Order: sequence, then structure tokens, then C-alpha cells
Amino acid sequence: MERDDKGIGAAKLGDFPEWYAQVVQKAELADYGPVKGTIAFRPYSYGIWELIQNAFDNMIKKTGHKNAYFPILIPESFIKKESEHFEGFAPEVFWVTHSGNNPLSERLILRPTSETIIYYFMAKWIRSWRDMPLLLNQWCNVTRAEIKDTKPFIRTSEFLWQEGHTAHATHEEAEKEVMQILEFYRKIIEEYIAVPVIIGKKSEREKFAGAEYTMTLEAMMPDGKALQCGTSHNLGQNFSKPFEVKFLDKDEKNKFAYTTSWGISTRLLGALIMVHGDDKGLVLPPRVAPIQAIIVPIAYDGESGKEVLSNADAIAAELNRKGIRTEIDKREGYTPGWKFNYWEMKGVPIRIEIGPKDIANKRAVIVKRVSGEKNPVERDKLLNQVKKDLNSIQKEMFKKASALLKERTTDVNNYEEFKDMLSSKGGFIKVKWCGSGECEEQIKKETTATCRAIIDQKEVSGKCVVCNMDAKYLAYFAKAY
Amino acid sequence: MERDDKGIGAAKLGDFPEWYAQVVQKAELADYGPVKGTIAFRPYSYGIWELIQNAFDNMIKKTGHKNAYFPILIPESFIKKESEHFEGFAPEVFWVTHSGNNPLSERLILRPTSETIIYYFMAKWIRSWRDMPLLLNQWCNVTRAEIKDTKPFIRTSEFLWQEGHTAHATHEEAEKEVMQILEFYRKIIEEYIAVPVIIGKKSEREKFAGAEYTMTLEAMMPDGKALQCGTSHNLGQNFSKPFEVKFLDKDEKNKFAYTTSWGISTRLLGALIMVHGDDKGLVLPPRVAPIQAIIVPIAYDGESGKEVLSNADAIAAELNRKGIRTEIDKREGYTPGWKFNYWEMKGVPIRIEIGPKDIANKRAVIVKRVSGEKNPVERDKLLNQVKKDLNSIQKEMFKKASALLKERTTDVNNYEEFKDMLSSKGGFIKVKWCGSGECEEQIKKETTATCRAIIDQKEVSGKCVVCNMDAKYLAYFAKAY
Repeated sequence: MERDDKGIGAAKLGDFPEWYAQVVQKAELADYGPVKGTIAFRPYSYGIWELIQNAFDNMIKKTGHKNAYFPILIPESFIKKESEHFEGFAPEVFWVTHSGNNPLSERLILRPTSETIIYYFMAKWIRSWRDMPLLLNQWCNVTRAEIKDTKPFIRTSEFLWQEGHTAHATHEEAEKEVMQILEFYRKIIEEYIAVPVIIGKKSEREKFAGAEYTMTLEAMMPDGKALQCGTSHNLGQNFSKPFEVKFLDKDEKNKFAYTTSWGISTRLLGALIMVHGDDKGLVLPPRVAPIQAIIVPIAYDGESGKEVLSNADAIAAELNRKGIRTEIDKREGYTPGWKFNYWEMKGVPIRIEIGPKDIANKRAVIVKRVSGEKNPVERDKLLNQVKKDLNSIQKEMFKKASALLKERTTDVNNYEEFKDMLSSKGGFIKVKWCGSGECEEQIKKETTATCRAIIDQKEVSGKCVVCNMDAKYLAYFAKAY
Repeated sequence: MERDDKGIGAAKLGDFPEWYAQVVQKAELADYGPVKGTIAFRPYSYGIWELIQNAFDNMIKKTGHKNAYFPILIPESFIKKESEHFEGFAPEVFWVTHSGNNPLSERLILRPTSETIIYYFMAKWIRSWRDMPLLLNQWCNVTRAEIKDTKPFIRTSEFLWQEGHTAHATHEEAEKEVMQILEFYRKIIEEYIAVPVIIGKKSEREKFAGAEYTMTLEAMMPDGKALQCGTSHNLGQNFSKPFEVKFLDKDEKNKFAYTTSWGISTRLLGALIMVHGDDKGLVLPPRVAPIQAIIVPIAYDGESGKEVLSNADAIAAELNRKGIRTEIDKREGYTPGWKFNYWEMKGVPIRIEIGPKDIANKRAVIVKRVSGEKNPVERDKLLNQVKKDLNSIQKEMFKKASALLKERTTDVNNYEEFKDMLSSKGGFIKVKWCGSGECEEQIKKETTATCRAIIDQKEVSGKCVVCNMDAKYLAYFAKAY
């Protein structure tokens, strides 16, 4: 952040792209790299990512998954083995052609995702039904050469993610895995990042290249565009066959494994910024805030200044001991007002102000970032109040975001309404759909909206919004990042 | 592991390379990738790495360092800015030349280390003395194209590491940082991995390309070759100048920052395997063992089998609750003896055997991997005994390794002795040295040994082991990985 800066110089609902770019830079979240589409994750955004990692890592470890690490360098021949997969990723891979001064005998790609390289190993490691389920996960960087519309966190040529890869003896077990992970993702996105999502299946057109089907979690951004926040794929035997991931089953027969893959990425940081931020800057949900409470001492000079600082130290120590991530802004040469603005821009959920008067009155002042609400609290009730406030802020932020999601979702009955609502209001358009690729293609062509998620529902009565034939699905369409 | 395998089929001191390769594979630590020199880190080795990460991450966070993440793709022009640095790394970098079907306008390298890309950002982020020290760290993958002598963990074309990068206002502060990290590394390597190290300065010839000086921690392997386990570099202003990492100091003058960088990598796993392993396989120090205690139930059938399993469950729950990483081997169809061998090969520090007789006698049996020592323990004293044993095993392993390091270090008085000892015994040869590059070069040429570390000592009396001129340094020479 430029210290002499006045804060975010664009309104969120006025110039959204400019607002986003400024929040990313001024809240010290990320900076642009020299190679198109690459960014540096500054400590503040990386700290948020570490909290997300920690939460998800606990969930998967408790359910028997183990972390591993696979090579980033994948031979060209690997990615060509599953043809749909190759077609999906080939246009955006980075090619490694030389090492030192020598051309390589086979071109290599940098992993855009690791199915192909991981199945190479799975085929070696799996022998019999005893070796399954094999539940692997890796936290790593992936690269996909993005040319257009690059945007920090949302669309970058390199990002960080976890990719889970599992192998099962039956289709049913693979299905259970896909749904278990989907629920973990919902928890992370809704209960940690406080972003509500629509959960459903991807259409054939939109599913992961090579998957049997893809489950998705889709959030809505303030500019009316959907953001895919996580996907969980059932790959059936589509990958196990070309990569020969086979096992000897209990019945002594050799069978191909059923595999799944799933991922969430640093894109979630983009969703978080877009959904919760305001004209003052970032607003962080407490559960993923690297700093949950920032203490701003009000006086510095003389004896009373010393007392203020020692009180601030005592509060910080007490809160940190109880697991509340607390820091004190002791920087000299800045006014309290300047510091208030600084930490508001950084989105810290709670500010604690303490000055000589507060000490005399045995109290402190709590200010909530999300609402601006300001309350004096007795010193000996401070810890409990901060705990309570962090909980209520987390809930409040999700509630607020849920109301916005509802507001940005429209049911329509015919194609004219679809087009009207999409161009006037954007957001999710909820429709009945016959399920045909032709209707989907027509929507895409005429409106640029895509099918974001199909809702699982046994019977759908009514007609397709495009062709007026019998509808098969309820589906959410939207323009998307 | 092949289930019908008989264990490690080579003696550690008989055919060391073959022994190492078998331990890596059979203990399910790593597997060879399709691209030369790449490996997959299987969950078991990655679990060890996670424990190392956790320990070191805590140390650096407590001292104000923050994690961040920087692009893996670095423009060719960056690496050319510091000429020594470029010469050092150019022969082993991977070059990215295309994205999708398009040639890139500038060739990119995959980071072999991140000084150049990080300084690009530091130059933007640092304005004044207030912004320093800037204490950054990243956990990531790096690639260095290794053609010869590749060996899992020890020398691979891609490995995992942390790289710290810090900027300071004075040379003195940078120096303090270099030494603080060196001490953290000593703790990790000696107190966690239980591998004793020689600590000293690298010679001009051996220092990091572009550094003012490099501090190193060197371990000795059983085949008499040294292994560099970690380095901490004082870069002075060598990088801040070409990359223009400047700051406005308190005296209102613009100055170049003093920078440091430091790293430890998954190479440490190689040191751990080589130093502690034995003819039965891996031996893990408790502090970095993913499984610290493995419970092997002795009976399965009928009522007594049920009772054994429920007792095993109760023990596992009790130990896990107290933070001891404990698992039960409930696999059917394998004899207890087979399981003993299996977990010995995997190096689990403590095995707990429990059968119907043990239950009748209200006891269990503890077997220590490192010594094979077997002791019955009363059931209600089990938890405390396991705790005690884990502590004593950790110490015992370090003591044992320290004795070996001593045994493999020889003081010599003249060059003939140097050559004799190096060829007959290997290990560290401790010598007096004039400090000249000529003598160092002569040793390298005639013996292939290099200077591993120079010991900091004010006055050295005596003559250089090669040229017989006045000695300046005490130094350790050895052949090295």
C-alpha cells in the first residue's frame, strides 16, 4: 500500500473491475508478475490461503486421504492418451522443450492438472482390491496459459490448488467419494469463506475434459457473473482404461478401477474479495482472516502512552492465548484515524481501540468491520465479547451474501424473459431445459451465458425455455468468469 | 511394497546404492517418474516432509517471517541480470518456449531458485526503512535438470523446498538473519532428523552463485560421502544492486538493501534414510515419523480376537489423544510375523504387540525399532512408557549417528595422509588450509574431494596441507553427493 494513498479510489458498484484491481493491490493481496497472467501471492493473501488449506486438509485427513506429491513435468505422450482430456487442455499448456542448452528428446508440459501423471503411478501401485480405495491429494502449483481476461486470483496463468485423485473398486464407492468431497467443499466455501453456492451437475458441454460427470459449486459475483468455486469429478473408468489402472478383485478377476478427481484453488480468494468487499476495501470472514482483531492504541506520548501500550500488549496476549489471531499496530508517525482506514482496507473483522480514557474507565472499544458498529466493552468482558462478535460476524456475512445470491437469481418462463433478465440484471437465470446440447449452444451463442449447474431433481414438469419441448432439468444459466 | 517380497535384498554396507534404492521403493517412500530425475513423493515420504515443514514453519513464523508465493515462470532476462548467478544455474534450467501452439515472445525458465523473481517484487514493495526487515519465505517446487547421478531425494530434477528471502537495512542485520536461520536448520537436522552436521562457511569456489558468503550444514553418509543439508546465504548488496532493491533510510538517503536467502529441501529425506536405515529397511526418528507407534494385534479369530481388537482400539485412542501418532494394523490374511517385518521395513519407531495372553496379564509388549529391544509393559503404564521411549529413541539415534560422524572424520597432517585416508576410508578429512583457490582446485582435481565447510576460528597455526604455506583456515574436505 502506498502510505500516502487515500484508500480505494473506485466504487464497488460503480467501476467493479477497477475496484477489484485496487483492492487486490492496496490491501497488499497480490501483485502482477512479469509474465502475462502470473501473480505474486503476498503474505496477506497467502495467509488466507493457509487457513483454507488447514481447514480442508483436516477434513480430508480425517477421512483417510493422504497428501503426496507428483512431478510437474509430464511427457507429451501422457496427455495425449485420453483424447477428450488432451483436446481440453492442449491450447493452454506451457511446453518445456530444452534443459540447459540441450533440446529434450520428448516435449514436456507443465501440469495443468495431474490425472495423467498420477495414473501412471497408480497403475504401478495398485495390485489388488486390498490397495483400494487409494485416496491421494496434492497441494501444488498448476499452470494454464491464459491469454485473455487475466485477473488476479480469478484467472491466472499459474495458480495454487489442491487436487484429489482417488481410485475405487466400484462405481458406487467413487460416487460416494465425489459427493463427500462436494460436501467438504460446500463447508469450506459457505462456512469458512461465507460465500453461498449453487450446487449441481455440469452439463456435458461444461464438464471436466474426460469426466463421466462433474459436480460443481457456483457462486454469484456482484457484477452478475458466476464463478465456479470448486469441482468434483466422477471419471468412471475413462482414465483407468487408457492408463491401465487395474486391480485383482476378490473374485480373482482383473478389473479397471473407478477414479475421481476434485479441486479447489486460490480462485476462492477472488470470490472472497468480490463477494464481501466494499468501497473501503476488503472485508474478511473471521474464520479465514489472518488477523482477526487489530488493536489500535490511541495515545503514545509520555506515561499514559506507556500504559496504553502495556494494556494493548496484555489484551493481545490474552486473545492470542485463546486462539484469536490478534495484532497491535504500534507503528509510530501515523494517526489513529489513518490506522483505522488502513485496517479497514485490509478487511480485519474486528478493531479494538484503547486509549487513556478507556483505561480509566476499565474498558475498550470494539468496532466491527462489516457493519461499522462501534461498542464500548468492559475490559474483563472483552475476550468473551470478541469471541461472540467473531461468530456473529461470520454468520452475518454469510446471511448478507445469501440475500444477494437470492436477489441475483431469477426464475424465467420463456426465452424472451431469459434474454431480458440476463442483459438487464445478469445473475443466475433459473430455467427448465430439455437437456439438449443444441438449446445450450443456442443460449451460449445468443447470450454468452452458459449452463452453470443442473439441479438434481427426479421429475420436472413443463417445457424447455428454448425449444419448448418437454423439460428434463432445472438448470442455472449465467455469464461466467 | 510387493506383498510377497522378503524385504530389503541388499546389505547397507555391502551394496549401498542398491540398498538405498530398495529402501526408497519398498518402504513406499518414492517412485521414479517418466521424466529423467523426477520422482513421486508417496504419502509416506510426504508425511515426513510435512512434519519437517511444520517444525520449521513454526520457528520462522515465531520470528516474524511470513509465507508468500511467487511465480515459477521467470523471464530469461531476469536470470541474466546477476552474471555469476546466471552462469551457475544456466546449464541446469528447464526452458519454456511455447504456450499452446504459440511460441513465447521471451523464453522463460522454471525457477531453479527464486532470488531474481522475488527481487523484482521486493523492488516494488520496499520504499523506506519502515518496510524492513522484509522477511519472506515460500514452500514450493523447484526444478534443476539433472542428467548424471540422479537419486531419489538426493539429486532429482524437481524437488520440494522452502526458500527464505529477506531484505535488511544493514549488513549487520542481514548477518544476524543468516545465523539465526542457520541455527534453526541445525535444530531441524540434528534435533528432528537426528542427523549430526558440521557447520561452517563455504569456500569461494563452493558458495552460492552470487552470494557474498554461504553458511552450510554438512552431514556424512555411510559411504563416506558428504551431503549438503542446508545453506544460508548472505547476499550483501550483490542482488539488490542489479535488481534495484532500494530504500529511503532514516537519514533521508536512498540505499541498497542487504539481502539473504536460505533453503532446506526434500534432500533431507535422503540424509535421514541413509544415516539411520539398516539392513531391515528404514529407521525413523520419532519426531519426524508419520506413524510413531504401530499396534499389531496378535489374534483375530473368535471372542479373544474381538477382545484383542477392542483393546488395540482403546490403546490407539489413548495414545492418539495424547498426541502420539498411532495406528493399528488390522489387515487380515497376514501373519503377525509378516506385519512385524513390514513395519520394521517402514521404520516405525515403536511396535506394540497385544494378544490374548497380554490382555490376561494386563500388559502389552513394546518393541523398539532402532535396537530391537523388547519389553512387556503393564497396561496402565503403557502411555508413559511409550512417551519415554520415543524421547529416548530420538536421543539414542542422534548419539549413534554422532559416533559414526566422529568415526568418519579424520585429522590429517600432510597431503599424502589426506589422499590415503580419503581413498581408504572416505569421510571428512579435517585439514589446515591456506585458503587459496589453487590448493582447493588441486585437491579437487587429484582426489575429487571438495571443501565442504570452513570452520570459523580466529587463529590457525600450522601449514596448508597442500602447499605448506601458512594455514589460514581449518576446513573439512570430502567427496560429496
